Amino acid sequence: MQKKVFQILVDNTSGVLSRISGLFSRRGYNIDSITAGVTADSRFTRITIVTHGDDEILDQIEKQVAKLVDVRDIKELKRDDSIYRELALVKVRTGEDRRQGVMEAVDIYRAKIVDSDRECLTVEITGTQSKIEAFLSLISNYEILELARTGIAGLGRGSENVVYL
Amino acid sequence: MQKKVFQILVDNTSGVLSRISGLFSRRGYNIDSITAGVTADSRFTRITIVTHGDDEILDQIEKQVAKLVDVRDIKELKRDDSIYRELALVKVRTGEDRRQGVMEAVDIYRAKIVDSDRECLTVEITGTQSKIEAFLSLISNYEILELARTGIAGLGRGSENVVYL
Repeated sequence: MQKKVFQILVDNTSGVLSRISGLFSRRGYNIDSITAGVTADSRFTRITIVTHGDDEILDQIEKQVAKLVDVRDIKELKRDDSIYRELALVKVRTGEDRRQGVMEAVDIYRAKIVDSDRECLTVEITGTQSKIEAFLSLISNYEILELARTGIAGLGRGSENVVYL
Repeated sequence: MQKKVFQILVDNTSGVLSRISGLFSRRGYNIDSITAGVTADSRFTRITIVTHGDDEILDQIEKQVAKLVDVRDIKELKRDDSIYRELALVKVRTGEDRRQGVMEAVDIYRAKIVDSDRECLTVEITGTQSKIEAFLSLISNYEILELARTGIAGLGRGSENVVYL
Protein backbone atom coordinates (compact mmCIF):
# COMPACT_ATOMS: atom_id res chain seq x y z
CA MET A 1 0.00 0.00 0.00
CA GLN A 2 1.72 3.07 -1.23
CA LYS A 3 0.70 6.68 -0.98
CA LYS A 4 0.81 8.50 -4.29
CA VAL A 5 0.32 12.11 -5.29
CA PHE A 6 -0.86 12.87 -8.81
CA GLN A 7 -0.84 16.23 -10.50
CA ILE A 8 -3.39 16.49 -13.28
CA LEU A 9 -3.84 19.33 -15.73
CA VAL A 10 -7.27 19.58 -17.28
CA ASP A 11 -9.41 21.87 -19.36
CA ASN A 12 -11.62 24.00 -17.19
CA THR A 13 -14.87 22.18 -17.99
CA SER A 14 -17.76 21.02 -15.86
CA GLY A 15 -17.52 17.26 -16.35
CA VAL A 16 -13.84 16.49 -15.94
CA LEU A 17 -13.68 16.35 -12.15
CA SER A 18 -16.53 13.88 -11.99
CA ARG A 19 -14.98 11.67 -14.69
CA ILE A 20 -11.64 11.60 -12.89
CA SER A 21 -13.08 10.84 -9.46
CA GLY A 22 -15.36 8.25 -11.07
CA LEU A 23 -12.35 6.36 -12.42
CA PHE A 24 -10.91 6.07 -8.93
CA SER A 25 -14.17 5.03 -7.31
CA ARG A 26 -14.99 2.39 -9.91
CA ARG A 27 -11.78 0.64 -8.93
CA GLY A 28 -12.76 1.02 -5.27
CA TYR A 29 -9.98 3.55 -4.72
CA ASN A 30 -10.57 6.24 -2.18
CA ILE A 31 -9.24 9.71 -2.92
CA ASP A 32 -7.54 10.73 0.33
CA SER A 33 -7.53 14.34 -0.69
CA ILE A 34 -8.21 16.44 -3.75
CA THR A 35 -7.52 20.07 -4.47
CA ALA A 36 -8.35 21.88 -7.66
CA GLY A 37 -7.80 25.43 -8.76
CA VAL A 38 -7.48 27.40 -11.94
CA THR A 39 -3.92 27.91 -13.26
CA ALA A 40 -2.28 31.14 -14.41
CA ASP A 41 -4.02 30.46 -17.72
CA SER A 42 -7.72 30.42 -16.80
CA ARG A 43 -8.55 27.86 -19.49
CA PHE A 44 -6.90 25.20 -17.37
CA THR A 45 -7.31 23.71 -13.91
CA ARG A 46 -4.59 21.96 -11.93
CA ILE A 47 -5.78 19.10 -9.73
CA THR A 48 -3.72 17.42 -7.02
CA ILE A 49 -4.98 14.01 -5.90
CA VAL A 50 -3.60 11.95 -3.03
CA THR A 51 -4.48 8.29 -2.98
CA HIS A 52 -2.99 5.05 -1.78
CA GLY A 53 -3.05 1.45 -2.85
CA ASP A 54 -1.51 -1.17 -5.04
CA ASP A 55 1.16 0.17 -7.42
CA GLU A 56 -0.05 -1.78 -10.41
CA ILE A 57 -3.66 -0.66 -10.10
CA LEU A 58 -2.62 2.95 -9.55
CA ASP A 59 -0.53 2.74 -12.73
CA GLN A 60 -3.62 1.54 -14.58
CA ILE A 61 -5.72 4.37 -13.16
CA GLU A 62 -3.02 6.87 -14.15
CA LYS A 63 -3.10 5.60 -17.75
CA GLN A 64 -6.90 5.70 -17.85
CA VAL A 65 -7.02 9.25 -16.50
CA ALA A 66 -4.50 10.32 -19.15
CA LYS A 67 -6.92 9.14 -21.85
CA LEU A 68 -9.95 11.03 -20.54
CA VAL A 69 -11.45 13.89 -22.53
CA ASP A 70 -10.23 17.27 -21.24
CA VAL A 71 -7.18 15.80 -19.46
CA ARG A 72 -3.99 17.41 -20.75
CA ASP A 73 -1.38 15.85 -18.51
CA ILE A 74 -1.01 13.60 -15.50
CA LYS A 75 2.17 12.92 -13.60
CA GLU A 76 3.17 11.58 -10.25
CA LEU A 77 4.67 14.10 -7.86
CA LYS A 78 7.32 12.07 -6.09
CA ARG A 79 8.10 13.03 -2.56
CA ASP A 80 11.80 13.74 -3.04
CA ASP A 81 11.31 15.99 -6.05
CA SER A 82 8.21 17.84 -4.95
CA ILE A 83 6.81 20.39 -2.58
CA TYR A 84 3.57 19.52 -0.85
CA ARG A 85 1.63 22.05 1.17
CA GLU A 86 -1.73 21.96 2.88
CA LEU A 87 -3.88 24.47 4.73
CA ALA A 88 -6.18 23.64 7.63
CA LEU A 89 -8.74 25.63 9.59
CA VAL A 90 -9.28 24.27 13.09
CA LYS A 91 -12.01 25.46 15.43
CA VAL A 92 -11.13 24.58 19.02
CA ARG A 93 -13.37 24.90 22.06
CA THR A 94 -11.39 26.72 24.73
CA GLY A 95 -14.02 28.39 26.90
CA GLU A 96 -12.98 31.76 28.27
CA ASP A 97 -10.19 30.51 30.49
CA ARG A 98 -8.37 27.78 28.60
CA ARG A 99 -6.97 29.76 25.71
CA GLN A 100 -3.34 29.83 26.78
CA GLY A 101 -2.40 26.32 25.66
CA VAL A 102 -3.86 26.78 22.21
CA MET A 103 -2.17 30.16 21.81
CA GLU A 104 1.18 28.60 22.73
CA ALA A 105 0.70 25.85 20.16
CA VAL A 106 -0.18 28.54 17.60
CA ASP A 107 3.09 30.33 18.38
CA ILE A 108 5.21 27.20 18.18
CA TYR A 109 3.77 26.23 14.81
CA ARG A 110 3.65 29.79 13.43
CA ALA A 111 -0.04 29.32 12.91
CA LYS A 112 -2.57 32.20 13.00
CA ILE A 113 -5.73 32.86 14.96
CA VAL A 114 -8.32 33.94 12.40
CA ASP A 115 -11.50 34.03 14.49
CA SER A 116 -12.57 33.86 18.10
CA ASP A 117 -15.56 34.20 20.33
CA ARG A 118 -16.13 33.42 24.00
CA GLU A 119 -16.26 29.72 23.40
CA CYS A 120 -13.72 29.00 20.72
CA LEU A 121 -10.67 29.96 18.70
CA THR A 122 -10.28 29.25 14.99
CA VAL A 123 -6.72 28.64 13.85
CA GLU A 124 -5.24 28.67 10.35
CA ILE A 125 -2.19 26.48 9.88
CA THR A 126 -0.24 25.63 6.74
CA GLY A 127 2.58 23.24 6.01
CA THR A 128 3.29 19.67 5.19
CA GLN A 129 0.75 17.08 6.22
CA SER A 130 3.01 15.87 9.00
CA LYS A 131 3.31 19.40 10.43
CA ILE A 132 -0.47 19.73 10.47
CA GLU A 133 -0.82 16.30 12.10
CA ALA A 134 1.70 17.29 14.76
CA PHE A 135 -0.18 20.51 15.52
CA LEU A 136 -3.48 18.63 15.80
CA SER A 137 -1.84 16.14 18.11
CA LEU A 138 -0.45 18.94 20.32
CA ILE A 139 -3.92 20.42 20.83
CA SER A 140 -5.68 17.08 21.07
CA ASN A 141 -6.60 17.55 24.72
CA TYR A 142 -8.91 20.35 23.60
CA GLU A 143 -12.18 19.66 21.89
CA ILE A 144 -11.90 20.19 18.15
CA LEU A 145 -15.29 21.48 17.05
CA GLU A 146 -14.64 21.67 13.33
CA LEU A 147 -11.72 20.94 11.06
CA ALA A 148 -11.52 21.88 7.38
CA ARG A 149 -8.41 20.73 5.52
CA THR A 150 -7.74 21.66 1.93
CA GLY A 151 -5.74 18.57 1.12
CA ILE A 152 -2.34 19.14 -0.41
CA ALA A 153 -1.39 21.18 -3.41
CA GLY A 154 1.91 20.16 -4.94
CA LEU A 155 4.49 21.27 -7.46
CA GLY A 156 7.67 19.65 -8.72
CA ARG A 157 10.90 21.20 -7.48
CA GLY A 158 13.07 23.35 -9.69
CA SER A 159 12.62 24.57 -13.23
CA GLU A 160 12.93 21.26 -15.03
CA ASN A 161 9.97 19.20 -16.19
CA VAL A 162 7.65 22.15 -15.95
CA VAL A 163 4.35 21.63 -17.74
CA TYR A 164 3.72 24.91 -19.49
CA LEU A 165 0.08 25.50 -18.87
CA MET B 1 -24.79 34.63 -11.45
CA GLN B 2 -23.93 34.23 -7.86
CA LYS B 3 -20.89 32.68 -6.29
CA LYS B 4 -21.71 30.13 -3.61
CA VAL B 5 -19.62 28.16 -1.18
CA PHE B 6 -20.96 24.84 0.09
CA GLN B 7 -19.64 22.85 2.98
CA ILE B 8 -20.46 19.17 2.75
CA LEU B 9 -19.84 16.49 5.35
CA VAL B 10 -19.63 12.97 4.02
CA ASP B 11 -18.70 9.47 5.04
CA ASN B 12 -15.14 8.71 4.06
CA THR B 13 -16.01 6.33 1.18
CA SER B 14 -14.64 5.98 -2.32
CA GLY B 15 -17.72 6.87 -4.35
CA VAL B 16 -19.08 9.96 -2.70
CA LEU B 17 -16.82 12.55 -4.34
CA SER B 18 -17.66 11.28 -7.79
CA ARG B 19 -21.41 11.27 -7.05
CA ILE B 20 -21.29 14.84 -5.77
CA SER B 21 -19.24 16.22 -8.65
CA GLY B 22 -21.45 14.26 -11.05
CA LEU B 23 -24.53 16.07 -9.78
CA PHE B 24 -22.96 19.42 -10.56
CA SER B 25 -21.70 18.42 -14.00
CA ARG B 26 -25.01 16.86 -15.09
CA ARG B 27 -26.59 20.28 -14.60
CA GLY B 28 -23.72 21.82 -16.56
CA TYR B 29 -22.36 23.47 -13.43
CA ASN B 30 -18.65 23.96 -13.19
CA ILE B 31 -17.03 23.49 -9.79
CA ASP B 32 -14.74 26.50 -9.48
CA SER B 33 -12.80 24.87 -6.70
CA ILE B 34 -13.04 21.85 -4.47
CA THR B 35 -11.10 20.89 -1.38
CA ALA B 36 -11.59 17.75 0.63
CA GLY B 37 -9.92 16.46 3.73
CA VAL B 38 -10.59 14.11 6.57
CA THR B 39 -12.09 15.67 9.73
CA ALA B 40 -10.99 15.22 13.33
CA ASP B 41 -13.07 12.05 13.22
CA SER B 42 -11.44 9.98 10.48
CA ARG B 43 -14.73 8.36 9.47
CA PHE B 44 -15.78 11.65 7.89
CA THR B 45 -14.53 13.97 5.19
CA ARG B 46 -15.32 17.68 4.92
CA ILE B 47 -15.63 19.02 1.38
CA THR B 48 -15.72 22.69 0.43
CA ILE B 49 -17.08 23.44 -3.03
CA VAL B 50 -17.15 26.84 -4.72
CA THR B 51 -19.48 27.25 -7.66
CA HIS B 52 -21.48 29.97 -9.32
CA GLY B 53 -24.71 30.21 -11.18
CA ASP B 54 -28.42 30.62 -10.96
CA ASP B 55 -29.75 30.64 -7.38
CA GLU B 56 -32.69 28.39 -8.09
CA ILE B 57 -30.64 25.69 -9.80
CA LEU B 58 -28.01 25.81 -7.04
CA ASP B 59 -30.80 25.32 -4.49
CA GLN B 60 -31.91 22.26 -6.41
CA ILE B 61 -28.38 20.89 -6.55
CA GLU B 62 -28.00 21.49 -2.81
CA LYS B 63 -31.15 19.47 -2.11
CA GLN B 64 -30.05 16.66 -4.39
CA VAL B 65 -26.62 16.47 -2.78
CA ALA B 66 -28.27 16.27 0.65
CA LYS B 67 -30.11 13.13 -0.47
CA LEU B 68 -27.05 11.28 -1.74
CA VAL B 69 -25.82 8.16 0.01
CA ASP B 70 -22.93 8.94 2.40
CA VAL B 71 -23.76 12.66 2.59
CA ARG B 72 -24.32 13.70 6.21
CA ASP B 73 -24.80 17.43 5.88
CA ILE B 74 -24.62 20.24 3.36
CA LYS B 75 -24.85 23.92 4.12
CA GLU B 76 -23.97 27.15 2.43
CA LEU B 77 -21.07 29.08 3.96
CA LYS B 78 -22.20 32.66 3.57
CA ARG B 79 -19.49 35.23 3.13
CA ASP B 80 -20.37 37.39 6.12
CA ASP B 81 -20.53 34.50 8.58
CA SER B 82 -17.59 32.48 7.34
CA ILE B 83 -13.86 32.28 7.06
CA TYR B 84 -12.44 31.29 3.69
CA ARG B 85 -8.78 30.50 3.21
CA GLU B 86 -6.78 29.22 0.30
CA LEU B 87 -3.18 28.18 -0.26
CA ALA B 88 -1.27 28.63 -3.50
CA LEU B 89 2.15 27.50 -4.70
CA VAL B 90 3.55 29.73 -7.43
CA LYS B 91 6.68 28.96 -9.42
CA VAL B 92 8.06 32.14 -10.98
CA ARG B 93 10.86 32.40 -13.51
CA THR B 94 13.29 35.03 -12.24
CA GLY B 95 16.62 34.09 -13.76
CA GLU B 96 19.61 34.81 -11.54
CA ASP B 97 19.29 38.58 -11.55
CA ARG B 98 15.59 39.41 -11.32
CA ARG B 99 14.78 38.00 -7.90
CA GLN B 100 14.46 41.26 -6.00
CA GLY B 101 10.97 42.17 -7.18
CA VAL B 102 9.54 38.78 -6.32
CA MET B 103 11.21 38.81 -2.91
CA GLU B 104 9.69 42.23 -2.19
CA ALA B 105 6.23 40.98 -3.13
CA VAL B 106 6.81 37.97 -0.87
CA ASP B 107 7.63 40.32 2.02
CA ILE B 108 4.63 42.57 1.45
CA TYR B 109 2.21 39.64 1.37
CA ARG B 110 3.93 37.67 4.15
CA ALA B 111 4.36 34.84 1.73
CA LYS B 112 7.21 32.30 1.92
CA ILE B 113 9.84 31.12 -0.49
CA VAL B 114 9.77 27.32 -0.33
CA ASP B 115 12.07 26.36 -3.20
CA SER B 116 14.55 27.97 -5.54
CA ASP B 117 17.08 27.17 -8.18
CA ARG B 118 19.01 29.37 -10.62
CA GLU B 119 16.02 29.87 -12.83
CA CYS B 120 13.06 30.17 -10.52
CA LEU B 121 11.57 30.77 -7.10
CA THR B 122 8.60 28.87 -5.69
CA VAL B 123 6.41 30.86 -3.34
CA GLU B 124 3.79 29.66 -0.86
CA ILE B 125 1.02 32.15 -0.13
CA THR B 126 -2.14 31.77 1.92
CA GLY B 127 -5.14 33.97 2.49
CA THR B 128 -8.44 34.93 1.01
CA GLN B 129 -8.89 34.49 -2.71
CA SER B 130 -8.67 38.23 -3.24
CA LYS B 131 -5.32 38.39 -1.43
CA ILE B 132 -3.94 35.62 -3.63
CA GLU B 133 -5.26 37.35 -6.75
CA ALA B 134 -3.61 40.60 -5.66
CA PHE B 135 -0.28 38.85 -5.11
CA LEU B 136 -0.48 37.19 -8.54
CA SER B 137 -1.29 40.53 -10.08
CA LEU B 138 1.71 42.16 -8.36
CA ILE B 139 4.12 39.61 -9.86
CA SER B 140 2.38 39.42 -13.22
CA ASN B 141 5.31 40.97 -15.06
CA TYR B 142 7.28 37.83 -14.26
CA GLU B 143 6.65 34.58 -16.04
CA ILE B 144 4.59 32.24 -13.90
CA LEU B 145 5.81 28.75 -14.76
CA GLU B 146 3.39 26.77 -12.60
CA LEU B 147 0.58 27.60 -10.24
CA ALA B 148 -1.13 25.12 -7.91
CA ARG B 149 -4.04 26.47 -5.87
CA THR B 150 -5.83 24.40 -3.30
CA GLY B 151 -9.15 26.16 -3.66
CA ILE B 152 -10.70 27.46 -0.47
CA ALA B 153 -11.41 25.66 2.75
CA GLY B 154 -14.10 27.33 4.83
CA LEU B 155 -15.63 27.26 8.29
CA GLY B 156 -18.52 29.16 9.78
CA ARG B 157 -17.57 31.86 12.29
CA GLY B 158 -18.08 31.43 16.02
CA SER B 159 -19.30 28.51 18.02
CA GLU B 160 -22.91 28.46 16.87
CA ASN B 161 -24.27 26.16 14.19
CA VAL B 162 -21.31 23.86 14.50
CA VAL B 163 -21.86 20.50 12.85
CA TYR B 164 -20.46 18.02 15.33
CA LEU B 165 -18.57 15.64 13.12
